[in-house]
Order: sequence, then structure tokens, then C-alpha cells
Amino acid sequence: MLTRISALLSKNPGFETSLLGWVRTVRQQKKYSFIDIDDGSGNIQVVIPSSNLEHVITGASIEVTGTLVQGPHALEIQGNSIKVIGKSDVNYPLAKKAHTMEHLRDCVHFRSRTQTIASALRIRSEASFAIHNFFRKEGMINIGFFYIQTPIITGNDCEGAGELFEIKNSEDFFGKKAYLTVSGQLHGEIFASSLGRIYTFGPTFRAEKSHTQRHLAEFWMIEPEMINYSLQDTYTLASNLAKSIIEHALNNNHQDLINLHRNPQDLENVVKSEWTVITYEKAKTITNKQDIGLSTEEEKYLTENHYKGPVIVTNYPKEITPFYMKKGDKFAENFDMLLPGVGEIVGGSVREENFDVLEPLVPDKKALEWYLDLRKYGTALDFMWIFFWVYRKMFHMQGLG
Amino acid sequence: MLTRISALLSKNPGFETSLLGWVRTVRQQKKYSFIDIDDGSGNIQVVIPSSNLEHVITGASIEVTGTLVQGPHALEIQGNSIKVIGKSDVNYPLAKKAHTMEHLRDCVHFRSRTQTIASALRIRSEASFAIHNFFRKEGMINIGFFYIQTPIITGNDCEGAGELFEIKNSEDFFGKKAYLTVSGQLHGEIFASSLGRIYTFGPTFRAEKSHTQRHLAEFWMIEPEMINYSLQDTYTLASNLAKSIIEHALNNNHQDLINLHRNPQDLENVVKSEWTVITYEKAKTITNKQDIGLSTEEEKYLTENHYKGPVIVTNYPKEITPFYMKKGDKFAENFDMLLPGVGEIVGGSVREENFDVLEPLVPDKKALEWYLDLRKYGTALDFMWIFFWVYRKMFHMQGLG
Repeated sequence: MLTRISALLSKNPGFETSLLGWVRTVRQQKKYSFIDIDDGSGNIQVVIPSSNLEHVITGASIEVTGTLVQGPHALEIQGNSIKVIGKSDVNYPLAKKAHTMEHLRDCVHFRSRTQTIASALRIRSEASFAIHNFFRKEGMINIGFFYIQTPIITGNDCEGAGELFEIKNSEDFFGKKAYLTVSGQLHGEIFASSLGRIYTFGPTFRAEKSHTQRHLAEFWMIEPEMINYSLQDTYTLASNLAKSIIEHALNNNHQDLINLHRNPQDLENVVKSEWTVITYEKAKTITNKQDIGLSTEEEKYLTENHYKGPVIVTNYPKEITPFYMKKGDKFAENFDMLLPGVGEIVGGSVREENFDVLEPLVPDKKALEWYLDLRKYGTALDFMWIFFWVYRKMFHMQGLG
Repeated sequence: MLTRISALLSKNPGFETSLLGWVRTVRQQKKYSFIDIDDGSGNIQVVIPSSNLEHVITGASIEVTGTLVQGPHALEIQGNSIKVIGKSDVNYPLAKKAHTMEHLRDCVHFRSRTQTIASALRIRSEASFAIHNFFRKEGMINIGFFYIQTPIITGNDCEGAGELFEIKNSEDFFGKKAYLTVSGQLHGEIFASSLGRIYTFGPTFRAEKSHTQRHLAEFWMIEPEMINYSLQDTYTLASNLAKSIIEHALNNNHQDLINLHRNPQDLENVVKSEWTVITYEKAKTITNKQDIGLSTEEEKYLTENHYKGPVIVTNYPKEITPFYMKKGDKFAENFDMLLPGVGEIVGGSVREENFDVLEPLVPDKKALEWYLDLRKYGTALDFMWIFFWVYRKMFHMQGLG
């Protein structure tokens, strides 16, 4: 039976094993050859007497039998035999050297064999688990968040969150136009209005023609909705979730974080610190700008220069907030969470729960009649939502086409 | 601070509490009124001296303060005060009586306030967690399944899994036609060819114009891909996963299963029993039909009449299997898992890993060049995949439009 490299690294020297991995580098010397292999769980060096290693080249998959030994720098395998399972050839697009992200975008189907992308994927996998675990076990007030899947194909084009992808054959199929969702938040309120506390975690889509890191066509978001939460409850929930994801990565992806040049100590400090909470008005006093809204530069200044850590900014001017946010005379009951080096990763707000206030503000009353119905029949105070851009910025793997 | 009903039901009589719920039924008598409320975590009866309950009607959300007491049948709340948080009116579409599924389809935005749909959603939420937990902790051989999100928007229209939804503005946006994915399986192989063992769990789409329970436009699937697994390893993994989801529901959704008229004892027996494994040839001997393939009726006969339990059928005729399955002289190395009362919930196969055998069978070599590349550079034995229809059949919530 084959062992995975991640499991192997916890064994003691002397352990005899077989393992399968893809060859990353081969260094042939007179007496011995050194082969670095990776099986997706980690990588290890195989040392084997030099002989016929014709097909043992970068990209090939090989089965190695040998003994775990303590090498000069790390655990390694003293190989007894090597069997080539899948050949490779000189056209294999990943060479020994480090590759640019641009090159990796051209060989998307192999890039997860690189250490950088594999590490990002392993962190993403663990982060996903941490998210579900958090909502299931550590809901702030007491247990009871339900995981909900909101529809991807939707008839609502009026949420104002971004440009839509339209489905061509939808009028044939559904009898009306349909689009890919830009957010599950409005649908999420249906479930908060019955189950009390829910979260979504699934793909959303934007058709803006801006191909930058901030404008991906397809990315995953987390959108919780809770009744009976205050603004403070909500940003506390959001920061607890963010901290718990980071903490989980520190415990489960230590080497991956190092592979991505993240300093575990810095991350630990972020988890342990109190995160700054300020109003928009105070933020503008600090950045000393007179215009409305916070620019990317101002956000950067607040987190990287002034506070040197995460900042939660509350109560933005009501003119620049969407129809569903609860508003006072001048400001909305909302917040953005800003991280140094990343920018906005969470936005959240109290929802307007009063039918008479909300109704004139709804952009397409016919399409959103169902949404207004939630206010008509048994509305509840303090709907909240938050959403996470962290996936969009840190981990998204662009589609293969 | 408000308590959730699910948490309340574990407290001792005498506990004083406030809670928020939606009114399901109200029965006013001369001295006392009986109000059944639900907060999405569960339901409880409130008994309160009759007075002005004008706005306490079905659908309204109310805040109740009172004491937990042991009633004649179950725990109930002896109410001190009631505050109406959100009114309702006579047009609220859920009356006291039981509703047909057809009626609930007409008021999709309220149906999760019914016991049946709420129970299905709570089971689905727990099942999702059980799935992630299984792959993270209980991978059959040893740890190491990574959760991967494969693209929803894809250029591949040639997997043969079903009709596609086309994205109208995709040629503007991507410079070529794009579709909604029918399966993440081929992309999943990229990650199995680097990370070793992965699973996807996300939405897939089918544009067949058959609006039956078996043909939903949008549903979630689980698609694991493993290298170095045998056919037996794979169907053992699939049945272990299925058993672990059922077991998790038995432990966490006991009342919900009863609400959905499932007998927990029957489910426990299914978890404890050995599941039958037979070849397609043997299955045909039992059903005594000469045609090729297994019809829904034959599947039903095997699970409900002959074996009275889950049946795994292996090695279907190679003519009726897709291009990517490994084939022998007459049969493919694949299986279907059939459950009584449900039908096929899992299909799986060994993949053809040999480039020379696979290449002539690929339907669109240009679009799938990347897929063939996986065989060219470092192919590995025994790619496997399984996928779960359980979500499609049991839990899917049709989009709201």
C-alpha cells in the first residue's frame, strides 16, 4: 500500500514504504541521483544509486520503494527501486526553474503541480473546512447556523451588485430571461426569515469587462444572514470568522504559508490583536480627504500606515449604499472590514425591515415582489449580512475555458 | 438575550427565557391561548392567558418572554408577555393545514417556514458538513482529500453528460462560447494529477427540457478523483461516505427525519448492513431481461424486491459507457450504486490512463487537448470518480426565478 508524503513526514526514520509522486527535479551525479518528488500532499527527496534513469524526468509519475532516513537537511527516502508509471517528455511545460504567474496561466492544467499553487489550494481546502466548522460550532451567540445553497440561475437582474452573465437558452427553457447570480444575499433573507441564521458559500459571477485581480468573472463568497443581530454582533462575527480561518491555517498549513512567503508570526499577531473599529466620519478625519466614500488609497493608508492592522469602518454615508441597507438621517447601519495588503474583504449591513420605508426604494418592484413579501408577512428586526471577498483575492483559480 | 428553540429544548423546566419565532398556529380559548411558534431551529407551544392577540396570527413574528414548563405532551412556554415584531395578514399563503408540494412551489419564499421543508434544509445543512468532515478526516486509506472548486463557466461542451446552458454574452467577454458546467469531473482530474486525492462539491447544470424529479436544471454534486485507487477501493469509499452521511443525520437530525416520515431504525439497519456488490452480468441474470443496460424498473427490482437494500452493480457493457472509462474486452471498470426508493445515487469508474487508447475516443480533441495532456505528461494508474445524485433527488430547492 502506498503512503502519502504528508503522512510519511510524521514517521520515524527506518520506516519502509512505497509512494507515488510526480518528479519535480532530477540531479544525476556519478554515484547517486537525487530526485525531488511531490504527490500533492507534500514533497520529499529520493536518493538512489545512479543507474538507468532515462524516463525519470520532470513531470513523470514514479513509484518509489525505499526507507525513510534522516538526511542532512530533512527526512528523505533512501530508494531501493523506482518504477515509471507515467512518462513525460521535454515538452512538459514546467521546468526546474521558478515560473512566473503569467507562464502558469498558460499551462493551467499543470500549474497545481507547482509548490506555490498547490500550497494555495491546500490552504483554500482547509479554509473551506474552517468556514463550515465555524458556522456549525462557533456561532457567536449560540449554535444554529444552517448552510444554504441559493440559486445560481436567477431572474433578478436588479440587485445593483454588478454586471450579469445572461443565459442564452433561458427564454426557451424557463420562459423568461435568466442570469448567473451576482450574490445570494436577497435569497439568503428568505431562509433567515424562516431558519433564523443561515450562511451561503458558493460561486457568484460578475460580467464587468475589467480583467484585474479585483474583477474576476467567477468567485466564491460567504454570505451569512441573521435575524436579531446588531451591527456590532455582525462585525464581531465577521472578525471571529476571519480570525478562525487564519488560526486554522496556522495549525494546518504551516509549511504552505511559508511556501507563499507568509510570516506565521505576523498572522498570529493579527489573530491575537483587538481589531480597530471606527466610524466612516472618523476615518475621513484621519485620511483628511473631503470627497465622499473611501478610496483604495485611503483604505490602504488606514490599515498599513495609521493602524497597522485590520480596521472595521462603520456607518458610511447613506447616499452611497444600496437600497436594502437600513439608513439613518445621514449614515447607513453598515460596515466594511479592511485588511492590510488585501483591502476590503467583508461588507455588511443591517437591512431595512420596514415595508413602508423599503417599498419606494426597491428598483424593480415586480421582480422583487417576493422580497417585499418578506417584510409584509412576519418581518423581523435586524437582518444582517456580511460577505467575504477573501476568496476572490487570495485563492481564486481562473476557469480553464 | 434571545434563546433559540433548539437550545431551549435541552434546558430544564423553570428556565426563564425570551425567544423570537414565527407564528404557525394560534388557538384561542376562553381562558388561555395556545400559540405554536417556530424559529427555524425547532418549534414550541406557548401558553398564555387570553387577552388582546389581534396581531398574533399565522406568519407574524413575535417575541415571547416566559418560563419553560413541562406540558402534557412536551416542553412548552408559559408566556408572560408577547410583542409583535412583524405583522402578517390574511393573505399570508401558509394556512394552518398541511399544504401540497404544488402549493408550496407557488410560495417558494415562504415554504421554508413549513416543518417539512425546514427539516429537509436542516438535514441538507448537516449532510453538507458530514461530507466535508468525511473527506477531511476519514479518507479510506489515509488522510489527504483536498476540497477543490472546479469552474462553473466552461468552454467544454463535449463531455456527453447532458444538454448545456450557453452564456449569451460570453463571446464578448471571453472571446469564445462558454457554457454552464454539467460536471466538474474532467477538471477534477487536473487536481488529482497533482494533489493526488480531491473532491468537488458544487453546483452543476443540465438544460434538458424534461421537468421531472430526475431532470433538474441546477443541482449540487460531489465528485471525488483519486489516483491509485482500485474499483473496489472506490465503491467502498462511496458506500462509506453514504453511510457516514446517514449516520450523521441519525445523530443530528433525529426529529427532522421523523418529520419527513423516515424511520430511524430502518436507516440504522442500512448503515450497519453489508451492501450487496454484484456484476452487471449477474444483475441481468436476476432481472431476467435480455436488453442492454439496466432500466429504472430493473434497478427498483434489485434493491426493493430481490436484495431489499443498497446494491452496487459493477462492470457495465463497454458500449454504453462514456469515452473516459477504462474498458476491457466486453465490460468497463465502472459501477453504479443503487438505493431502494431512490435509485442511482452514485456512479464511478476507473479512467483510461493510456494516451494511445484514449486519444482516438476523445470526442473533441481540440477542446480537450489539455485533458489528453494529463495522459501525456505523468499519467498515473487508476483515476477514479464517483458522483452523488443524492442532492438532486432529495434536497434540491428549485430556483426562485
